[in-house]
Amino acid sequence: MDPQFDVFKSIIEDFIPFHKIIGFKLLEARENFVSLLIPYRPELIGDVRRSSIHGGVIATAMDAVGGAAAITTLKHENDKLSTIDLRVDYLAPGQARDLITEGTIVKSGSKVIFTRMIAYHDNRENPIAEGRGVYSVSRTKPV
Amino acid sequence: MDPQFDVFKSIIEDFIPFHKIIGFKLLEARENFVSLLIPYRPELIGDVRRSSIHGGVIATAMDAVGGAAAITTLKHENDKLSTIDLRVDYLAPGQARDLITEGTIVKSGSKVIFTRMIAYHDNRENPIAEGRGVYSVSRTKPV
Amino acid sequence: MDPQFDVFKSIIEDFIPFHKIIGFKLLEARENFVSLLIPYRPELIGDVRRSSIHGGVIATAMDAVGGAAAITTLKHENDKLSTIDLRVDYLAPGQARDLITEGTIVKSGSKVIFTRMIAYHDNRENPIAEGRGVYSVSRTKPV
Amino acid sequence: MDPQFDVFKSIIEDFIPFHKIIGFKLLEARENFVSLLIPYRPELIGDVRRSSIHGGVIATAMDAVGGAAAITTLKHENDKLSTIDLRVDYLAPGQARDLITEGTIVKSGSKVIFTRMIAYHDNRENPIAEGRGVYSVSRTKPV
Repeated sequence: MDPQFDVFKSIIEDFIPFHKIIGFKLLEARENFVSLLIPYRPELIGDVRRSSIHGGVIATAMDAVGGAAAITTLKHENDKLSTIDLRVDYLAPGQARDLITEGTIVKSGSKVIFTRMIAYHDNRENPIAEGRGVYSVSRTKPV
Repeated sequence: MDPQFDVFKSIIEDFIPFHKIIGFKLLEARENFVSLLIPYRPELIGDVRRSSIHGGVIATAMDAVGGAAAITTLKHENDKLSTIDLRVDYLAPGQARDLITEGTIVKSGSKVIFTRMIAYHDNRENPIAEGRGVYSVSRTKPV
Repeated sequence: MDPQFDVFKSIIEDFIPFHKIIGFKLLEARENFVSLLIPYRPELIGDVRRSSIHGGVIATAMDAVGGAAAITTLKHENDKLSTIDLRVDYLAPGQARDLITEGTIVKSGSKVIFTRMIAYHDNRENPIAEGRGVYSVSRTKPV
Repeated sequence: MDPQFDVFKSIIEDFIPFHKIIGFKLLEARENFVSLLIPYRPELIGDVRRSSIHGGVIATAMDAVGGAAAITTLKHENDKLSTIDLRVDYLAPGQARDLITEGTIVKSGSKVIFTRMIAYHDNRENPIAEGRGVYSVSRTKPV
């Protein structure tokens, strides 16, 4: 049992109400990296003709894993984090299947954290979307 | 009764499953402009300490009004639209209240449509988020 | 004579070496707003077929006016500023003519400043490019 | 001798007037990838205190390698390309040294091409900036 995994599982799956509506499941959480699963459900569809998951679900998942990856860099429980900006490139229409989203730290500074994200069905080399998130951080101790 | 309003109301509120989960309500739809209401519900919260709506809800609403504004520029039912990219600047934490999101056409070209979006509680001059969306369009007739 | 104008003129036109190569001329500087002129020169061309100014010149001018607008919010000479990110939407090809670029504060916070920028030939309502800049600020006194 | 290299060298170094002012040198050009060198010169400085290269030079180089990488996907001389949008994340201040910029195709579609870019001094794993470019393409033959 990995206590850090359990903490992040609780944050991603239970603590944030909007995540429960979507049904995110934590896959992995380690320093500088978090991934989650979006189990396919018809309620998540954005484009009915293609039965593909709504771009907003993908944007939400990207902010979730980017923010969670940023949280892995925090050293103190009073450190605070907020999203400055989020950008998503939609590379290909999604299919009516589960999606995986990964967030990775690009640069963790004393005041600003940069992250990159991808979303894919089963092949990380063939993502349907890529994103970037920038987060403002207040650290109680310097990095 | 405005038939165009009813068409967009149906698209925003009924046709797209993920919008129903969030509870979007169409406010206005006219050429180059669409706005919607996100009625406050605890299920939409992203930051429990502040009871503020999840950034992903805001991103979803921005893609919804940006895409709907883009649809107002289409002239033929076979015209097709897909989101190329979406960017959201989070200017201030939201409050536990209703949110309004507006999407406006910046430039409607023959192949690419640029939109800008804002989200605010009750004062358009004091938005909590601003966004940009770029859409690819296939027009059956030239603009 | 406006002493603030002269300070910004010196920053934009003389202090920054790369601005001198391009030939930026300050047009206006007041709280939350800075504009500059890019006088047309063949050396600035990016697309030879259209004789239009290079997108990089426009991006440079946008970072210049966004950063200068951010400087107008500083209250102390030891305050420090750096660009977090810059985004430019290229709405239309430019022409072989002078360009004006304007930067406006969207939100000036204690740690992060958001700006928006436009570039146009002679009609602000018909820009050829729009941009957003986000800046990190270290303020010696709280806002 | 690689004829494709010579064509891209001519495009990057000679054909585009604004590139000559900056002094870009092509390093590599192959399918889906282009890199260039920005030889350090005091005229390129943006931040005099740190003697670091102007963010606009980096943005220009990123648009150059992103656009050139997009050109490597073209199959016909009448194919046309234009920049839709450009985004740069400034991860760390640059130093008074040469910079390398690389552009890689993320997704090359029939109408839209997505690219990613990085800029670094000598260690690709430690970039000072990362970027994304989206390009509109008119292909005379389908991909």
